[in-house]
Amino acid sequence: MADAFKGNAVVGQSGGPTGVINASLVGVIEECRKHPEIGTLYGAVHAVAGMVKDDFIDLGKLSTETLETVAASPSSALGSSRDKPDAEYCRKIIEVFKKRKIRYFFYIGGNDSANTAHILNTVADETGYDIRSFHVPKTVDNDLLVTDHCPGYGTAAKFVACALMGDDLDNRALPGVKVDVIMGRHAGFLTAASALGKVREDDGPHLVYVPERPVSMDKFMSDVEGVYQKLGRCVIAVSEGICDSDRKTWAEKLAENAERDAHGNVQLSGTGALADFLAGQIKGKLKIKRVRADTFGYLQRSFAGLQSAVDVDEARRCGREAVKLATKHDNGSVAIKRTGNGKDYAVELFRTELKNVAEKTKSMPVEFINGADNGVTDAFVKYAMPLVGGLPKTEYLGTRPKV
Amino acid sequence: MADAFKGNAVVGQSGGPTGVINASLVGVIEECRKHPEIGTLYGAVHAVAGMVKDDFIDLGKLSTETLETVAASPSSALGSSRDKPDAEYCRKIIEVFKKRKIRYFFYIGGNDSANTAHILNTVADETGYDIRSFHVPKTVDNDLLVTDHCPGYGTAAKFVACALMGDDLDNRALPGVKVDVIMGRHAGFLTAASALGKVREDDGPHLVYVPERPVSMDKFMSDVEGVYQKLGRCVIAVSEGICDSDRKTWAEKLAENAERDAHGNVQLSGTGALADFLAGQIKGKLKIKRVRADTFGYLQRSFAGLQSAVDVDEARRCGREAVKLATKHDNGSVAIKRTGNGKDYAVELFRTELKNVAEKTKSMPVEFINGADNGVTDAFVKYAMPLVGGLPKTEYLGTRPKV
Repeated sequence: MADAFKGNAVVGQSGGPTGVINASLVGVIEECRKHPEIGTLYGAVHAVAGMVKDDFIDLGKLSTETLETVAASPSSALGSSRDKPDAEYCRKIIEVFKKRKIRYFFYIGGNDSANTAHILNTVADETGYDIRSFHVPKTVDNDLLVTDHCPGYGTAAKFVACALMGDDLDNRALPGVKVDVIMGRHAGFLTAASALGKVREDDGPHLVYVPERPVSMDKFMSDVEGVYQKLGRCVIAVSEGICDSDRKTWAEKLAENAERDAHGNVQLSGTGALADFLAGQIKGKLKIKRVRADTFGYLQRSFAGLQSAVDVDEARRCGREAVKLATKHDNGSVAIKRTGNGKDYAVELFRTELKNVAEKTKSMPVEFINGADNGVTDAFVKYAMPLVGGLPKTEYLGTRPKV
Repeated sequence: MADAFKGNAVVGQSGGPTGVINASLVGVIEECRKHPEIGTLYGAVHAVAGMVKDDFIDLGKLSTETLETVAASPSSALGSSRDKPDAEYCRKIIEVFKKRKIRYFFYIGGNDSANTAHILNTVADETGYDIRSFHVPKTVDNDLLVTDHCPGYGTAAKFVACALMGDDLDNRALPGVKVDVIMGRHAGFLTAASALGKVREDDGPHLVYVPERPVSMDKFMSDVEGVYQKLGRCVIAVSEGICDSDRKTWAEKLAENAERDAHGNVQLSGTGALADFLAGQIKGKLKIKRVRADTFGYLQRSFAGLQSAVDVDEARRCGREAVKLATKHDNGSVAIKRTGNGKDYAVELFRTELKNVAEKTKSMPVEFINGADNGVTDAFVKYAMPLVGGLPKTEYLGTRPKV
């Protein structure tokens, strides 16, 4: 290993936490330990914000037991940051790297994090300080380019699917209309996952709206009325990024129309506003008495004790792969290629250029959304089902033959 | 068994579903099969609403596999109802019972359901038609009298505890103030369960507000400011039934169009108004930038694949016990007595009078709420911990010693 690239390493976790971003962290840690050319592995406390102010913990001293508990825990164990470093910010980080003899940079995050890795690498080059800069993919939105799917999505999708399975059974028991608002401002993958638990012909969600397909309030109402007239109930999954026919999001329109009273008692721009607004519209316009609405919120990305085993495994492998690649390449982002599906589901990991993943995002492909713009296709289910690593089986009796 | 009380039986599930009300149903079914004096077991589709209009399925034909899947499924597999029968309603039910030769009545639900069992029994007596009327306890609120705790609570408490464990880790990763609004109109048991996953000294929730203790907006703000100044973050669990110093709930004050169900309960669940209001107040008055709020809503009572094993077991035993008791007594409600705690946790079941459980509800005992009215005591944790059947272990690294 005479010509191996030697130095210390740093790892950080950026952006919104997920249920398996810690599995990727553990993947980076365990692989670094296998490579003698990598010295101390520093954990950046609160991502780039920690790097820029020299705030680190030593990840070499963690026991196997601690690592396994970290891998099973939601959220970002090192702390996260929403900072988006520019060249100046990166120059400061490089100064810290020089002082710490850090030559390996591993950054777990979404497209912004890939961009950070890209900028940092460029700045390092300009400074004449050689580093190996690698991005490990993470999102609950599943909106990264190049990769077949993204670690973090499978676990969030499992949460949403289990939530809708339970919620649909609840709606069967006490029929009415139920609206569930699900995370995803631009990509509908997570909202689409609401349909993964459907087994019976009349299982909900009966309507699924994703940001990729604008929908007018008239069409929405007409869809809901149709299902309600047929089934006597209706479960609806709506992306928080749902937009009107003019491409403006419903949430934006609500915020614009928000009339705050003198006491500040009305918060139409809040988290639950879209759900409450839709429930109110359905009650008012369709004259349906029992209408309920929930906004799933942060539980979707950080719920303790609920991971997709497939997602955990892939997240950890992506962390390890980043380290392996960094011993051979200057920079890159880890991506997933699906090599088998269904019962033969399998993946391979590969390296792609940072610029291929940086900044841009992916939307749901056309073939995943139904023709009526209010549901998902079998192609989507085939794509997403292996990622949640199995769903519970449920049974409902109320529709059995009468005696 | 010459003098055994012979006849057919009916079972119904009433009120809001829970994660284990189906386990109680399966308990009733499997025990009925053991008693030759009990003939056909009818499942009432949508509870008393099904009984009054002669809408039944035959529960004798279900396979063991189906029963086990039912027991593992959230929500009420027979369908539920919010109807609150009066004497006239019960007289109609008795007519149906006579036609079907139904002599055993098993009703799984909360205090309203115990009351229904009580009224039905009284009406049957008056009519001269002998029945055995039994109530099987169910609530997520844990607010039934007599019983140590109530089936349904442990599973909902587990959901809330896991949610807060993840949410607190999320808040560590991206610090700020987080408000979580949790079910419970009058009793704070479920909101209190938010604290069960606390392990580290500075783990959230840092503030817990239950309906039993009125709190003014000024005190609330002062509490939040205190925690935020100390920790740089604050996670708050608030019951939907939280009330102001004048004993009016904050939600009531907010709700302009408070919808009331047949029991006169104001519908507080499924609305994000309270959460959004509190977040707005904190942002505005304390000038804290990152403030988020979630309302957990229906996921708390009907999430697929997340049950407390202890709760499932006890719910099923309560179902079986109701049938056993009905072969020996005229009427009653099944209650739980705790006979050991901690590692020696164990329970015994016993019969109590329907009138002891009917209508009234229980609040959190004084010793479960801290002196500052913003948290729970060790006594509460000792009480509630065995009921959730274990919680996941998590690890956070950001607070480790720096290098």
